[in-house]
Amino acid sequence: MRIKCLWIGGIRNPALAGLEAEYIQRIQRFVPIEIVTVPEAKKVDPRKHAAQLDREAQLLGKKIGSNSYLVSLDANGEEWTSEGFAGFFEKMMNRGSSEIIFLGGGYLGIPGVLLDRSDVSLSLSRLTLPHELARVVLLEQIYRSFSIIRGLPYHR
Amino acid sequence: MRIKCLWIGGIRNPALAGLEAEYIQRIQRFVPIEIVTVPEAKKVDPRKHAAQLDREAQLLGKKIGSNSYLVSLDANGEEWTSEGFAGFFEKMMNRGSSEIIFLGGGYLGIPGVLLDRSDVSLSLSRLTLPHELARVVLLEQIYRSFSIIRGLPYHR
Repeated sequence: MRIKCLWIGGIRNPALAGLEAEYIQRIQRFVPIEIVTVPEAKKVDPRKHAAQLDREAQLLGKKIGSNSYLVSLDANGEEWTSEGFAGFFEKMMNRGSSEIIFLGGGYLGIPGVLLDRSDVSLSLSRLTLPHELARVVLLEQIYRSFSIIRGLPYHR
Repeated sequence: MRIKCLWIGGIRNPALAGLEAEYIQRIQRFVPIEIVTVPEAKKVDPRKHAAQLDREAQLLGKKIGSNSYLVSLDANGEEWTSEGFAGFFEKMMNRGSSEIIFLGGGYLGIPGVLLDRSDVSLSLSRLTLPHELARVVLLEQIYRSFSIIRGLPYHR
């Protein structure tokens, strides 16, 4: 099993980019993981948002295999506990899933066609988080999940 | 109204400490805010945890005025939305509250006597977050709340 984090636009805040790199390195001790980024639409005329999301959806579609299990970060998604998160990965490994994709949207969120394609939508908090910070929270939870699965001490 | 963030132990991760400083600076445009830190108990013999929490509680008690409104970060607390967070600050301002304290625990969490003293316990997510990352999420929400109250554009 491998994990792909598919981001619409990269993390620009240097502190958050540093945390992203730190967690990727830690997670790689447990499971192969990579970050794949597609260009984010620039902030322009709101009337063009739909066209921009269409373009992002096309780019993203090429990165998502038909057998990939797709988890989208979405404010309206399910809320999991950390134990539930670990249980999710255990289930995926038992099923023999080859690839899990976590899809993190940008300024305009996630294109509707990809929310429809998603196997699950995941909300990290009832709070609205900036998307760059949300990605760091996600990566920390992936690391925490594998620490739980391996029975390692990893504290708050 | 002023805000005091009362931390058991400071933020040691440099990237998270940088984000903490960034948000404090941004929030100060809206409302006076300060970070006050009491020393965190060292990780020692679990049989001494109760005594350590007692000591932390004594130090914290000196920083909490009888009229301060105390919000404790606690995994078992209430979950708010960002709009609910903004509404909380509006309510406090309308009431003429002079000080809101956000209490962030360390390795051992928050002493029970201070959870009892708390006016509200707040959980930022159903996920277990590392306490240093939780503090950054909290500060971002304080900033977001005042952006909402002031009607400023502040995007994800």
